[in-house]
Amino acid sequence: MFNKILIANRGEIAVRIIRACREMGIRTVAVYSDIDKDAIHTQLADESVCIGSAKAKNSYLNMQNILSAAVLKGVQAIHPGFGFLSENSTFAHMCTDCNIKFIGPDPETIEEAGNKSRAREIMINAGIPVIPGTEGVVETVEDALKEARKIGYPVMIKASSGGGGRGIRIVRKEEELKNAYETAKTESKAAFGDDSLYIEKLIENPKHIEFQILGDNFGTILHLGERDCSVQRKNQKVVEEAPSAIITDSLRKQMGEVAVKAARAVNYKNAGTIEFLLDKHGEFYFMEMNTRIQVEHPVTEMVTGIDILKEQLSIASGEKLSYDQSHIKIQGHSIECRINAENPDKGFMPSPGKIERLYVPGGNGVRIDSAVYEGYTIPPNYDSMIAKLIVHGKDRLEAISKMKRALEEFVIGGVDTNIDFQLKILNNKNFEKGKFDTSFIEKEILNRK
Amino acid sequence: MFNKILIANRGEIAVRIIRACREMGIRTVAVYSDIDKDAIHTQLADESVCIGSAKAKNSYLNMQNILSAAVLKGVQAIHPGFGFLSENSTFAHMCTDCNIKFIGPDPETIEEAGNKSRAREIMINAGIPVIPGTEGVVETVEDALKEARKIGYPVMIKASSGGGGRGIRIVRKEEELKNAYETAKTESKAAFGDDSLYIEKLIENPKHIEFQILGDNFGTILHLGERDCSVQRKNQKVVEEAPSAIITDSLRKQMGEVAVKAARAVNYKNAGTIEFLLDKHGEFYFMEMNTRIQVEHPVTEMVTGIDILKEQLSIASGEKLSYDQSHIKIQGHSIECRINAENPDKGFMPSPGKIERLYVPGGNGVRIDSAVYEGYTIPPNYDSMIAKLIVHGKDRLEAISKMKRALEEFVIGGVDTNIDFQLKILNNKNFEKGKFDTSFIEKEILNRK
Repeated sequence: MFNKILIANRGEIAVRIIRACREMGIRTVAVYSDIDKDAIHTQLADESVCIGSAKAKNSYLNMQNILSAAVLKGVQAIHPGFGFLSENSTFAHMCTDCNIKFIGPDPETIEEAGNKSRAREIMINAGIPVIPGTEGVVETVEDALKEARKIGYPVMIKASSGGGGRGIRIVRKEEELKNAYETAKTESKAAFGDDSLYIEKLIENPKHIEFQILGDNFGTILHLGERDCSVQRKNQKVVEEAPSAIITDSLRKQMGEVAVKAARAVNYKNAGTIEFLLDKHGEFYFMEMNTRIQVEHPVTEMVTGIDILKEQLSIASGEKLSYDQSHIKIQGHSIECRINAENPDKGFMPSPGKIERLYVPGGNGVRIDSAVYEGYTIPPNYDSMIAKLIVHGKDRLEAISKMKRALEEFVIGGVDTNIDFQLKILNNKNFEKGKFDTSFIEKEILNRK
Repeated sequence: MFNKILIANRGEIAVRIIRACREMGIRTVAVYSDIDKDAIHTQLADESVCIGSAKAKNSYLNMQNILSAAVLKGVQAIHPGFGFLSENSTFAHMCTDCNIKFIGPDPETIEEAGNKSRAREIMINAGIPVIPGTEGVVETVEDALKEARKIGYPVMIKASSGGGGRGIRIVRKEEELKNAYETAKTESKAAFGDDSLYIEKLIENPKHIEFQILGDNFGTILHLGERDCSVQRKNQKVVEEAPSAIITDSLRKQMGEVAVKAARAVNYKNAGTIEFLLDKHGEFYFMEMNTRIQVEHPVTEMVTGIDILKEQLSIASGEKLSYDQSHIKIQGHSIECRINAENPDKGFMPSPGKIERLYVPGGNGVRIDSAVYEGYTIPPNYDSMIAKLIVHGKDRLEAISKMKRALEEFVIGGVDTNIDFQLKILNNKNFEKGKFDTSFIEKEILNRK
């Protein structure tokens, strides 16, 4: 096992990593930007190094400075956390070049998973279901009609050069296709200077279901069950849970096997996540692979009893997984709410500033992964997530009641937070029934009085 | 299930009860002394009633005032917590007379368990091993020799009117008995005005092992395994854990069955604890029965997944236990450290006062049951325990490393605490090896540099 590692991150995930290290007897080196000198991660680590100014590109994204700190402090490994450099294969390569272990998969795996079209190709070749679509550009209306029929309606016509939801036409019936194709072409030309289009099946109001993967250096790859992360706002997860209210044992087994196969297709090592879209007919499609620890990993820890952070460290140090798929049991139910310093009534505008009052909920089945303390000033430069509130109950209803109780207790004064917004979600009857998909927040919370 | 209950307690246990109620949809009425008007339990409950001045006998021990509040607020039940009125059978009777359910066993059970000699008699009749001793007074040296031989050396000669360790002679060999008997008799006469003596087997440096019991109103009584509470200072528990490092599965089964039999002997309902002394030969003896929730109940919750507080409420409201002994599984390992506002360097003198700074540890496997917040003033009138830090790990070594990590993170400024003292215990090699008994703190922590 490592003696000393560097944590190339900040906030609650840096604290999470430091805690795991401490419990394993590994010394830690924190890096921090000058505005983070009073941050908890800076204080909790055994050693801390300032790596630059507040702007992330000068500090937490500054590979040279981070590697200099690592070499200077004589660490054996770097944990990248999530965000920042965690999925940067160049950084992973540079670590290897400095003879420092990057705690994550091989740089090649990061590269393959990060390139969406390459990842799609690999998954198709491995027999993993992907969202049906044309392989390349559709040149004519005739081809479009043929392809759309093959894929099955409804479909989306997408601009190859589009992005952020622009240049998309939804076509529900064949008779609408010709018109949609032609207007999309014209619009795309005008918007992007490129009129090439492709077609993809429209998965309507899917659930976001992801599987946690662990792989070691000896060929063992297994999954720790799913997380349901369908409660999203603008593709940002807000509430996550494990297990999903609607996944049956047999679907879990089936999706889990596919997830492991997908991980095997990129020779996956360490902790990773396979994200799927699940439609209302129970069909699921590979969406993407995240080659790092996820924000929402604690819900999986709570229901499996496996400490994913410690597994990351063990695997990276060359240890074998000491169990196999048959040992993984899902017990009870866990929910995580992301606590953000933001104002839901002002378009979720971030609300940095000083925390004047803090009362953190506790008690049976309540876990807090946080980066704040009373008197701490949240800087405006980074993500607005300041804490994660995680609960574990014997079943989903108990977890929901526990989360409501904990949210009601939580006091954060001095900055705006999304605690009341989270309570609206937890109090929603359809949420309670497990009836929600990725359109839930938009439909049920934001557009309701 | 109840709609509304009153909590006749304060501090972290009152908060614990309020949280359980909230998660079960039960409204809560807190009672508080005037010095506790800013206490957390006063703030968290749905309603609060001041029941008197700071002195416990005027408030938390004031049965009339508490019952008046209960009647006034229309509650269906009273949870007494621990300490205060929790083992007062008169109060339990008065609740019944007011048609309010006392959350605990029947008043008769409280009475029987509370009277030590009556409890001993009941246990002997039920075939429960008790500490061997003479039934009554030993009148002559000859009788003493006969009885001591029957009991087996070493024995203690105890003054019937003694107490607090006074009037005790330890006799290790038969030839020492005559002299010891005679000096004890003389001393006892001088000290207590009564020279009657009895003899009891000396259990040397035993372990304190207790079993958590649950019994419903339909005859089901089961146990949730043991807690090892041997780390004590002056009979006050300091660190508790579940399971015990030295109890084998077969001894657990054997002691558990005896504990259930003991509970059955007093027709036990609700949550209770059977305390045993366990000697180094694996022999165990009934010590006493606690007819209430214990401070250390969370370690059992962590390893069994059963919420003992919620079970108390369910059982009291007339529900059946929904599982039997075969469903109880011990998973992982849990440790609790009592965090007291006291100064170990000044003879553990209580250290009330204002909490100027507070940073509470969190993260995976860490639970805090606390009654404090930054800016809160701990009153001098009550117990010095201000929080319980509880951890759960996959095994004992992980739990120990987690507890050390959490204790190191814990910051309580403005008052003295026993956090460093707890760290000395957790860092002790014999503690780590599970080699400790009730003499541990005295021998290994206090008398060592």
